[in-house]
Amino acid sequence: MMKINVLGVATTEFGELWKKSPRALAKQAMEEALVDAKLKAGEIDALFVGNMLAGMLGNQANLGSFFAEELGLKVPAIRVEGACASGGLALNTGINSILGGQYKTVLALGIEKMTDSGQDEVTTGLMAAGSDSERMAGVTFPGIYALMAQAYIQEYKVSEKDLAAVSVKNHYHGLLNEKAQFRKEITIDDVMNSGNVADPLKLLDCSPISDGASAAVISLTSGKRKSVYITASEVATDTLSLHDRSTFVSLSSVVRASKSAYKKAGIDALDVDVAEIHDCFSIAEAIAVEDLGFSKRGQGAKDIKAGKMTLGKGPPAGRQGKVITNPSGGLKACGHPVGATGIKQIVEITQQLRGEAGQRQVKNAKIGLTHNVGGSGSVAVIHILKN
Amino acid sequence: MMKINVLGVATTEFGELWKKSPRALAKQAMEEALVDAKLKAGEIDALFVGNMLAGMLGNQANLGSFFAEELGLKVPAIRVEGACASGGLALNTGINSILGGQYKTVLALGIEKMTDSGQDEVTTGLMAAGSDSERMAGVTFPGIYALMAQAYIQEYKVSEKDLAAVSVKNHYHGLLNEKAQFRKEITIDDVMNSGNVADPLKLLDCSPISDGASAAVISLTSGKRKSVYITASEVATDTLSLHDRSTFVSLSSVVRASKSAYKKAGIDALDVDVAEIHDCFSIAEAIAVEDLGFSKRGQGAKDIKAGKMTLGKGPPAGRQGKVITNPSGGLKACGHPVGATGIKQIVEITQQLRGEAGQRQVKNAKIGLTHNVGGSGSVAVIHILKN
Repeated sequence: MMKINVLGVATTEFGELWKKSPRALAKQAMEEALVDAKLKAGEIDALFVGNMLAGMLGNQANLGSFFAEELGLKVPAIRVEGACASGGLALNTGINSILGGQYKTVLALGIEKMTDSGQDEVTTGLMAAGSDSERMAGVTFPGIYALMAQAYIQEYKVSEKDLAAVSVKNHYHGLLNEKAQFRKEITIDDVMNSGNVADPLKLLDCSPISDGASAAVISLTSGKRKSVYITASEVATDTLSLHDRSTFVSLSSVVRASKSAYKKAGIDALDVDVAEIHDCFSIAEAIAVEDLGFSKRGQGAKDIKAGKMTLGKGPPAGRQGKVITNPSGGLKACGHPVGATGIKQIVEITQQLRGEAGQRQVKNAKIGLTHNVGGSGSVAVIHILKN
Repeated sequence: MMKINVLGVATTEFGELWKKSPRALAKQAMEEALVDAKLKAGEIDALFVGNMLAGMLGNQANLGSFFAEELGLKVPAIRVEGACASGGLALNTGINSILGGQYKTVLALGIEKMTDSGQDEVTTGLMAAGSDSERMAGVTFPGIYALMAQAYIQEYKVSEKDLAAVSVKNHYHGLLNEKAQFRKEITIDDVMNSGNVADPLKLLDCSPISDGASAAVISLTSGKRKSVYITASEVATDTLSLHDRSTFVSLSSVVRASKSAYKKAGIDALDVDVAEIHDCFSIAEAIAVEDLGFSKRGQGAKDIKAGKMTLGKGPPAGRQGKVITNPSGGLKACGHPVGATGIKQIVEITQQLRGEAGQRQVKNAKIGLTHNVGGSGSVAVIHILKN
């Protein structure tokens, strides 16, 4: 079984960080992760950077060298991109390179700076994750996920209020996270009254546009902190277009990547104590908890509404699993700087498994999972962590 | 010692391919590489895509899934970017993932579509490989490499005609390559009279803007063709800006990556029979053959002018090495679709080591090297191949 040690993690706050450049954000996350790992920059053998939009929004490519320079490093440095799964893919690539024996200790950085650009530019940039035909049809991601929500509501007799409960839970968790973009409790009524974005998704069903950077130091050898290690890192892809798939209420990439990850980690879905989920929209988390095996088909939104995955509110009787989802606040409340998200999930799970998550600590968390998705499920990256 | 088998290779023609989309180019290269390997798409475990500009010029990201779809694959698919070294980095990442035990057989694809966009857009896109300060100074890559050329000419008493000989050699080789963008012999006078781009570099000192795709199937296990294998894959980085370096007449990233590659492959520079060099400008190849140890310091351009690295014209007495450089025509004559170049180099060296390079065959070629550079040397990727 794979055993990659997570030696140090850090994340900047997420939000509209107009006073901080991408260089400054990246440097902060990387330096703090090194401090957390009690390592010096010179002990890093390679850097893997997850980023989607720096070229399109900031005209900066060559991001491996670009960010390596911030630590004065001249080691191999590689930028990895897979839309909103860029962070997870950067970590996966770093892990595989360690396992290959090329490097011992590497830094995985996720970074995105989105709020310096105009809304149209950002929307256009994000649609680069979709297909030609989706763009030609004029659809954007809220529209694509709204199609999934429509199908989900019809197929499983779920209400819009059930879906809204995902955002309510994640805002409740975000309130407990000092790095979160939104630290404000909301109610189902708030979501219902927040104005249509793409029917049935309202404004508060949607994750925000954010800036932020997150970093993780991983290594073949154990470190100076409480041991947390990655025991599976699996990637799967699917068609780029939603309309090329056989169902709208499940992401096959997530099902395949998570099955493979459970097998490699030697665990079952129901063993997972805490999970960071890619809730770019409320519907995404409802479907994800089903695809990951935490809830039965059609029960995801309802389980979340019943409080089964909320900190300090579970687990009630009759619950299928025992997992708390998105203690960080998820993409919805913590924020979604797209390239950073996959690494921020690792930061959160590591802190949870160390027992250092403060107010948002999941009690006795031993096994954690991260679920990072690109596009509308055209790529999924699953990591499983243990302590 | 590492031993990754190259099972199959293919490249599209390079040039202004206005009738072919990125999807079509990628599909052609990948399918032909599979045919060359005598494998089916279903036997590929993962795809690594090297591309720099698709987001900036074509608003398409998420390129792993995007191109995997062309083969109907739903396997892990990851886009890797490091400016003009994106192709080499994609191969490096694929190799490390194989060595890590995650995959057995992977496809590395390099692809770029540049000629559908306006010249200003392409120039701006390419400058995304440089630094903020270089862009603010208004410099573009011909200007940056012109600074190196000025320093080289002054330091080593080399003439502009000596530098021009690099393009003359590569055009001579390109004439022999049916995939090359330019199949036309040129003379030193042609270069000297071709009009200034950035003094002392003339138009014919500069590689062109190109479209093209190249693919390589690599595997832990040997295949059905004559065995060619990769025995070193090394990456190094440097500062993004030229002005942050201690010298303009050597790229430290190339020196470090090649030293490491020679050591891992258990060979010396003088053992290399054939090399594909990243001659984005004539000066780049002159410096590269010195950084790689094929020529003494200050002798690179002169050795090339003396015909020491030209097919069918060497090796004369007194020559330091025995290497033929850029039998494909290099970036200058074969063309430079930036993300494709690093993989095209692997295609060429594989065909050379198989003895299948036709008119441009280097006799008894046993050891080959590829030299792929991003920016002005902020990243370098060196591969060594043997048969």
